[in-house]
Amino acid sequence: MSQPLRVGVAGLGTVGASVIRLLHRKADALEQRTGRRIIVQGVCALDRQRERGLPPGERTWFDDPVALARSPDIDLFVELIGGDEGPARAAVEAALACGHSVVTANKALLAKHGLALAALAEANHVALAFEASVAGGIPIVKTLREGLAGDSIERVYGILNGTCNYILTRMEREELPFDVCLAEAQRLGYAEADPSFDIGGFDTAHKLAILACLAFGVAIDASAVHVEGIRSITLADIRWAAELGYRIKLLGVAQKTALGVELRVHPTMTPISSSIADVMGVTNAITIDADAIHELTLIGPGAGGAATASAVVADIADIAKGVRSPPFGIPTGALERAPRAPMQRHEGGYYIRLSVFDRPGAFAAIAGRMAERQISLESIVQRSPPGERDLASGGSVPVVLITAATTETLIREALAAVVSDGYVAERPQVVRIERE
Amino acid sequence: MSQPLRVGVAGLGTVGASVIRLLHRKADALEQRTGRRIIVQGVCALDRQRERGLPPGERTWFDDPVALARSPDIDLFVELIGGDEGPARAAVEAALACGHSVVTANKALLAKHGLALAALAEANHVALAFEASVAGGIPIVKTLREGLAGDSIERVYGILNGTCNYILTRMEREELPFDVCLAEAQRLGYAEADPSFDIGGFDTAHKLAILACLAFGVAIDASAVHVEGIRSITLADIRWAAELGYRIKLLGVAQKTALGVELRVHPTMTPISSSIADVMGVTNAITIDADAIHELTLIGPGAGGAATASAVVADIADIAKGVRSPPFGIPTGALERAPRAPMQRHEGGYYIRLSVFDRPGAFAAIAGRMAERQISLESIVQRSPPGERDLASGGSVPVVLITAATTETLIREALAAVVSDGYVAERPQVVRIERE
Repeated sequence: MSQPLRVGVAGLGTVGASVIRLLHRKADALEQRTGRRIIVQGVCALDRQRERGLPPGERTWFDDPVALARSPDIDLFVELIGGDEGPARAAVEAALACGHSVVTANKALLAKHGLALAALAEANHVALAFEASVAGGIPIVKTLREGLAGDSIERVYGILNGTCNYILTRMEREELPFDVCLAEAQRLGYAEADPSFDIGGFDTAHKLAILACLAFGVAIDASAVHVEGIRSITLADIRWAAELGYRIKLLGVAQKTALGVELRVHPTMTPISSSIADVMGVTNAITIDADAIHELTLIGPGAGGAATASAVVADIADIAKGVRSPPFGIPTGALERAPRAPMQRHEGGYYIRLSVFDRPGAFAAIAGRMAERQISLESIVQRSPPGERDLASGGSVPVVLITAATTETLIREALAAVVSDGYVAERPQVVRIERE
Repeated sequence: MSQPLRVGVAGLGTVGASVIRLLHRKADALEQRTGRRIIVQGVCALDRQRERGLPPGERTWFDDPVALARSPDIDLFVELIGGDEGPARAAVEAALACGHSVVTANKALLAKHGLALAALAEANHVALAFEASVAGGIPIVKTLREGLAGDSIERVYGILNGTCNYILTRMEREELPFDVCLAEAQRLGYAEADPSFDIGGFDTAHKLAILACLAFGVAIDASAVHVEGIRSITLADIRWAAELGYRIKLLGVAQKTALGVELRVHPTMTPISSSIADVMGVTNAITIDADAIHELTLIGPGAGGAATASAVVADIADIAKGVRSPPFGIPTGALERAPRAPMQRHEGGYYIRLSVFDRPGAFAAIAGRMAERQISLESIVQRSPPGERDLASGGSVPVVLITAATTETLIREALAAVVSDGYVAERPQVVRIERE
């Protein structure tokens, strides 16, 4: 039997306390799996007095996470503090620099400093593992890094934020407007008091940047992600989606194109027949399109203390077994600073909802603006969707267009022309379509 | 840079040729990932002359797989011969015995000799990897063995045979009887000339026995699996399922119960809202219920040369990186010869379709036979389902019962009594219900 693996856990919130309970409850099973006893040697949190329901065990208390990270009594440092700077970053850097492996669930830290931290881990021949940072309990990091090591990935996309998916699900099921569903999500603890990070799409963008690095070997760059949130989605859009065979989801999409890797987060029309469209509530889901396997979808809990803790413990077990591979699959030095495909060049179908003044010629003028730019229309509908009460309001009628694949630039140009023609009463609503 | 990993591939069918092509095409990427060059040093197949479209490369030809398995010029032996005895078994044993790691896609070999082979691998400190043996390109072995190492699994169930799912999908979509869909599956190459191994549920049982070993740490024993195939499923059952909010799937289910691990393969009513119910055609899917993650579902290709080869190459990459854990997650000696829960004690809901003679009192007598055994009925319907043409044939009418949870023994007793009462014209049809 090898030496025990001594663990230090910084951050004793829901996830941290769950990690310590899981390590305690599964101690014998983990010893069988890894060949080593896993011991929580030290812990660190802000408030020493708080009751956390931790199992019995002698654990040294540290007030300073950096001191725990550097402690010669640990082999592995678990960072569950959060935040992309401050104590989280300082402690992870300190741990790696003195030769301790690190497990973290901190997507913000990875999105901002992941490459530098990975390089530090490689230089010190230790592990940096982060399964819990993306999609909680879904083993997507392991799947991309190891399970598809022999395949060529073309596209990774999915529902990576449970708050947004909960809101969209409620809007559809209860026919409630966005603001009511957001308030409900806040009441249930699914959304923060300031929800802009979630509903603005930024949380999804962080996770997408990490997945793109694993899938395509491109350096993490969250600032290269085109981000749109879900605040503009109305009940009318959700009803139209259903009518047209789609469901609206906030997707993160990373895709290989001839121009480079395209990274985008936006509300998306997903075909109702797709596995992703069926994912409701706070559940997350990720689909991988690859050359050999074609399509693989993983559906599971994207958050929650126990699920996230399960992913942290799986990482700890891998490290206990001695698994050491570059954190992002290939050495940091080999990650490409590849060009990012600009969003203006994005090609796809579009859903467009217009509020058109009920005047002769409006219809023909709109269709003409599309035709000028060779935008093919798959369908054009001029009526209210089922369930819509205000069939015409203020002398305008809804017109919904579904386009064949075209580019973002052409759509924007065509709609600018439609607006300046004076036929529409409101800003056009545009939702991209993601085909299977 | 470490020494190259020298691979021998025995069996050059669709999967074997795909493995060699993938290793060639991804050679540089795999070297980045694993830190080693992976070289196919030797190959072996029955017919040396056949054109297989292999990439260029100097590969020593072996006529005897055992000789390749023992060759001092290889480090890792890939077994793609097939069969649970004969050359496949002999070659895998020879490779492990002389200290070569093994990758195999052979579920039949593992279901029969997996424990002995795993023990041999452990004794010789080499790897035995088999991701491709269950559900082709879906990384279910890695997920159970590593990704959920810190969790407690309660149930694993899924669609593990693409042929059966293709047939059930065609029956539903085209409203065609079983035999026509089976013939179509054979014409398309999805089903063998002798389809009994697939449609009888035995292929699913082999895979389920392997998954149960990984999930619960119980010794593999395919003979402990209760197996029923899909031949008895009629169009009427498929229509009733839809009417009642279910879809019929052939599931393999491994579940922890108070009496031990229950292992069963049978046609199953799955709730139409479940992720599994939506999986159509030859696609496979597996859901894992566990304590911490609650529910995780993986959906992807269960077969096909390229998808299976992708799983084989991922295993080779892990071994190249030096990953060595017990083949079934925990040491073979620690696997339990746990009691298996007998099928008679299975508890669940049941769908029962009866063809009842149109006589006074029939309905009351049937309900009485159920009540005698405390079987609660959730619904009882006496009419034809939508689309059913022969509303009553030969003086009998269809009656469909959905029961609340009860035991297999009580259902069998109740139905035996109903039959001996003389009210039914045909053998009752029974399909178990699997709740989410």
